[in-house]
Amino acid sequence: MSDNTAMVIFQPSGRRGEVPKGINLIEASRRLGVEIESPCGEKKVCGKCKVRIEEGFFQKYGIESSRSHLSPWQEEEEKFFTAKERDQGYRLACVAKVEGDVLVFVPEEARAGKQVVSKAARDIHIDLNPAVKTYYVEVEKPTFEDPTGDFERVCRELERQFGLSGLRADIHALRALPDALRQGDWKITVSVWMDQEIIRVKPGMHGAHYGLAIDVGTTTVAGYLCDLTSKEVIDTVSLMNPQCKYGEDVMARITYHMTTPGGLKQMSDDIIEGLNWLIDQAVAGTHPPKKKIKNDKGEEVEVEVPEEGRTYLRLSRDDIEDITIGCNTAMHHILLQLNPEYVGHAPFPPVVHHSLDIKARDLGLKVNPSAYVFVLPNEAGFVGADNVGVLIAEEPYKSDEIQLIIDIGTNGELVLGNKHKLISSSCATGPALEGAQITFGMRAAPGAIERIEIDPETHEVDYKVIGRDAWRSYSKPEEMKARGICGSAILDVLAELYRAGVITKSGVFNKKNQKSKRFRRNPETRQPEFVLAWAEETAIGKDIVITQRDVRQIQLAKAALYAGCKLMCRRMGVQQLDKVKIAGAFGTHVDRKKALIMGLFPDCDLDKVEAVGNAAGDGCRVALLNREKRIEANWVARNVEYIELTVENDFQQEFMEAMQIPHMTDKFPHLKGLVPDEILNQ
Amino acid sequence: MSDNTAMVIFQPSGRRGEVPKGINLIEASRRLGVEIESPCGEKKVCGKCKVRIEEGFFQKYGIESSRSHLSPWQEEEEKFFTAKERDQGYRLACVAKVEGDVLVFVPEEARAGKQVVSKAARDIHIDLNPAVKTYYVEVEKPTFEDPTGDFERVCRELERQFGLSGLRADIHALRALPDALRQGDWKITVSVWMDQEIIRVKPGMHGAHYGLAIDVGTTTVAGYLCDLTSKEVIDTVSLMNPQCKYGEDVMARITYHMTTPGGLKQMSDDIIEGLNWLIDQAVAGTHPPKKKIKNDKGEEVEVEVPEEGRTYLRLSRDDIEDITIGCNTAMHHILLQLNPEYVGHAPFPPVVHHSLDIKARDLGLKVNPSAYVFVLPNEAGFVGADNVGVLIAEEPYKSDEIQLIIDIGTNGELVLGNKHKLISSSCATGPALEGAQITFGMRAAPGAIERIEIDPETHEVDYKVIGRDAWRSYSKPEEMKARGICGSAILDVLAELYRAGVITKSGVFNKKNQKSKRFRRNPETRQPEFVLAWAEETAIGKDIVITQRDVRQIQLAKAALYAGCKLMCRRMGVQQLDKVKIAGAFGTHVDRKKALIMGLFPDCDLDKVEAVGNAAGDGCRVALLNREKRIEANWVARNVEYIELTVENDFQQEFMEAMQIPHMTDKFPHLKGLVPDEILNQ
Repeated sequence: MSDNTAMVIFQPSGRRGEVPKGINLIEASRRLGVEIESPCGEKKVCGKCKVRIEEGFFQKYGIESSRSHLSPWQEEEEKFFTAKERDQGYRLACVAKVEGDVLVFVPEEARAGKQVVSKAARDIHIDLNPAVKTYYVEVEKPTFEDPTGDFERVCRELERQFGLSGLRADIHALRALPDALRQGDWKITVSVWMDQEIIRVKPGMHGAHYGLAIDVGTTTVAGYLCDLTSKEVIDTVSLMNPQCKYGEDVMARITYHMTTPGGLKQMSDDIIEGLNWLIDQAVAGTHPPKKKIKNDKGEEVEVEVPEEGRTYLRLSRDDIEDITIGCNTAMHHILLQLNPEYVGHAPFPPVVHHSLDIKARDLGLKVNPSAYVFVLPNEAGFVGADNVGVLIAEEPYKSDEIQLIIDIGTNGELVLGNKHKLISSSCATGPALEGAQITFGMRAAPGAIERIEIDPETHEVDYKVIGRDAWRSYSKPEEMKARGICGSAILDVLAELYRAGVITKSGVFNKKNQKSKRFRRNPETRQPEFVLAWAEETAIGKDIVITQRDVRQIQLAKAALYAGCKLMCRRMGVQQLDKVKIAGAFGTHVDRKKALIMGLFPDCDLDKVEAVGNAAGDGCRVALLNREKRIEANWVARNVEYIELTVENDFQQEFMEAMQIPHMTDKFPHLKGLVPDEILNQ
Repeated sequence: MSDNTAMVIFQPSGRRGEVPKGINLIEASRRLGVEIESPCGEKKVCGKCKVRIEEGFFQKYGIESSRSHLSPWQEEEEKFFTAKERDQGYRLACVAKVEGDVLVFVPEEARAGKQVVSKAARDIHIDLNPAVKTYYVEVEKPTFEDPTGDFERVCRELERQFGLSGLRADIHALRALPDALRQGDWKITVSVWMDQEIIRVKPGMHGAHYGLAIDVGTTTVAGYLCDLTSKEVIDTVSLMNPQCKYGEDVMARITYHMTTPGGLKQMSDDIIEGLNWLIDQAVAGTHPPKKKIKNDKGEEVEVEVPEEGRTYLRLSRDDIEDITIGCNTAMHHILLQLNPEYVGHAPFPPVVHHSLDIKARDLGLKVNPSAYVFVLPNEAGFVGADNVGVLIAEEPYKSDEIQLIIDIGTNGELVLGNKHKLISSSCATGPALEGAQITFGMRAAPGAIERIEIDPETHEVDYKVIGRDAWRSYSKPEEMKARGICGSAILDVLAELYRAGVITKSGVFNKKNQKSKRFRRNPETRQPEFVLAWAEETAIGKDIVITQRDVRQIQLAKAALYAGCKLMCRRMGVQQLDKVKIAGAFGTHVDRKKALIMGLFPDCDLDKVEAVGNAAGDGCRVALLNREKRIEANWVARNVEYIELTVENDFQQEFMEAMQIPHMTDKFPHLKGLVPDEILNQ
């Protein structure tokens, strides 16, 4: 690194690069393809470009980030920050100039491109029987003859009308009770958790009530705001797991805990902060958007801009009365501040398997103060509550068919079996399939390339970006505004590069068979790369490419999954799969055909392959809407046999072989017709 | 008030008076008989004399107290206070000079004379069956064959050995589990609440565990630190209820809530702060005292000074694994931040009758983070959980005898009946019998006069002070160091003044019958008063007197109790009491004979009168040590009939008559022989 440049890394996108010293962080973000809000045009007056500078040595990037590596604090920043924020390292990106290496966290509210997650949560059948139910009662006023207290008065009526007996009340609900009764003229709506505890009282009659199902992944977090009365998914919200800065996979985070005093609490605080942001987003989505206008006096005021014909629920945090959380065992332990150290060491025992009911307030989650969080149970050290979520959503234990369920995440989780027996295992796929560790990888946000097709004849690339319906081939270049590649396109790209003959079965660029100038050596690094989108089609002003290193990352991830599937089939003695289900946060976008071509799983009739979307998230939603499924979750967590694949014979051998893209038609008969014969026969 | 003086009021003692402007608060406290720690002799170097200045208008005293009524903050104070303490109005009493009216709160640690409460908690029979029990288990290490998680591993053993099934774990206990198991080499001691929830894990084997029973009175708070294994009371600790500054009786506090935004939270925070101080005291008492010495280098260091032959438990806050709390309904509601407004209005319904199990952390109590607080149930708006405590300690519902139980506190609570029927009621005695609102009233602390006798022949006074075994008649005047009169002496003094003929049956000083210069008119106010201790016998440099107003206050209190007892007997049709039990924080010190003479209750054979001490506190202790009594408490709370006395016919009439000290031998035959005939026949 020259004396005149410094390394700047933006979180949570992970975008990084050397920039000239002396430029401000807004300029640095532009050069690195990160968009930070700056409505005032860097005039230092709007305060929208707040970013946080992380302090410390970050092994993963090999840099020492320090707040002192920026130009000094300026008076203009004073009014936008509290003393606490200043202590935490917040700066205005338009003011702070780069003077050395820095790791910059861009809070969600400062990000110009908001993440897009498919709202179409899958329409799976769920019997409605939520943990939290509401009851409307009218009670008699107290008199001298019957001066019975408020709580007993309400309980008497709840027992008489609904058969609920032996109820207790959370202290916060009890505090609200006397005034709610009198405001409602002795008519109230009571929310009861598990027929045991009153967690909310509201004056008068209220129909709907709400809950949030959250799937906490190692890399991404998704939340489903649900109506507990109608089962409807009102909104889906998501964010990057803010712990990514401590390392991208679970082992890196466990290591961070073991090497950093206070590291566990720090990581837990970060995800809780993230979940609170998620909750705020879910709640904000039920209100009309706001816009700033000038009033008669020329003052700037905020007004609501409701969409025509739409009604808004206008929820508050208090309206979220139940939460379910699913995550892998390491994320589970870190979130709950349970020591994750032993999960990382053989024989990998978790602190707890069983589901937990914890008051949201005890975790620092800001929803209804009396609400519980239901944390799904863990199967084993490396197959966690997220997999249990997949299982209660897909219910392979009720099926005759032999199913293979592949849950793609930073850790891949596999389940194989049917109602007679189920085994599970885990493979370290790393976050490549989710867009991390890929040069132009990014989240599913506007501008992300989400589908890719490569013409075998010309090697021309067609693609689609999030936020624009028309594909590249039907658009003008400047209309595309591509910014990077997200998960679903990363699954596409390996299959397409192979099918078009751009790369060989071993994953190296086929230098003899290049048909366009898209294949080239990088002018700086001299490494081979393939251009997916030209600079003129992007919003970042440079070519979006896939490098040899990127291809290797994807191969490593898919090899881990493939080897895992194969070893599990061998362990179970399964020759033929009746069903293959591909799950993952971007699961519904998966192109089954391309997944088969790249060799994500053993050969199978395409008709038997199904993309089931974020089944872990579905499982959280199922547990939110049906309390019986919580019992089922605990049963299944203790009745799936966990297989530690890395100690199987041949694991290394299988893994190395699986790095190749499948080509032999005898092993993959179903590839016939999907890939040109000349490629298959290479 | 002259321009040169200002009113200074010290809390919690309530001592008040005008002092010259310009003197510091230490000097003011000396003049008003309050002792503030000042080991450095006002050299501003020890920081022991920290006091807090209350801000606002205090109706009760008719003064506006302000931090600006003191000399400005000095640099010397800086190092003794945090920024937060400074904001809260803390000052050094040796630095801050009086420049206007101030209400000064003297924290316990700055008070030179610590309260003394009889440690001899009554030896009542309690079957040991605490809510929290400990279990020692040894578990197998996890292996590849059995990688079951830590929690399930422990539960398996608890079920196998002790039959405990379906256990859950508090999140804090769960957090401690993995390291406790490994530190203890897979042997641990587990504390389980109500056979349901693991609330603590400790590596290895631990025998004893501890709990705290707390009686929260309107004026005084008493805590009993108990060994949950041996039932032993390890220590008794007490403090003044810090809410006294908002008003002395429950109605004043309810009014404060209704007139002051945020007042409820403020009062709740104050009592919680007080309870945390109480917990600290209980814990500190299990460590050797400390003393400051100079080491070889001449530096001041703190060393432990263990008493010879004594072993110390050396407990920490975490060692308190259970708490029970009893208090009257208003204190109950204020402590829990339940709106107390409706308790103050007919028909006085409480928010809740039933007992509550609340996590100590949810109330801000700093004990074991997973511990529960059991709050005793309320009978009615004016007969609270404290009375339930009295009932489960005394068990009149198991007796054939008709018992009258009088619980003397700021609110007097009465129970009458036997196993067939029990009725209860409440009377507004005010805090006079506890030493408040009496000119020289004070807490039971060293220097407090606790017993009084007056010679009918000479009107000479003999008395005993707390902290000195010898009575006045066996001591030199300067040895007595009296500072005021506490509750038990206040009960004595009315009977003695009457028996000696100093006052008449109507409570006025009998000007015709004065035999000593102790009776006089106050040189300033010209009001009649009687000197109990001469200035030379005191530590406050002035005569300790009882005034006509003091006598009236005591009469009002005793009249409320007497009228209540009489109306209840009439309601039940009871002619003859089989038993009279006098309870109260100072109950064991009550002289039954004098209580009869002053007319605290209807006439009764002295043999049938029993002083049962702090029965409410005993009830809290009973509930701490026996979980079955918690169920009994809920039963009794809903099966005692509450009588609202103030709406009874004749209440005013009975109350007025009861102001008199009993004298007619036909109504009080048992007075015969206790009081000279010439007095009785007046």
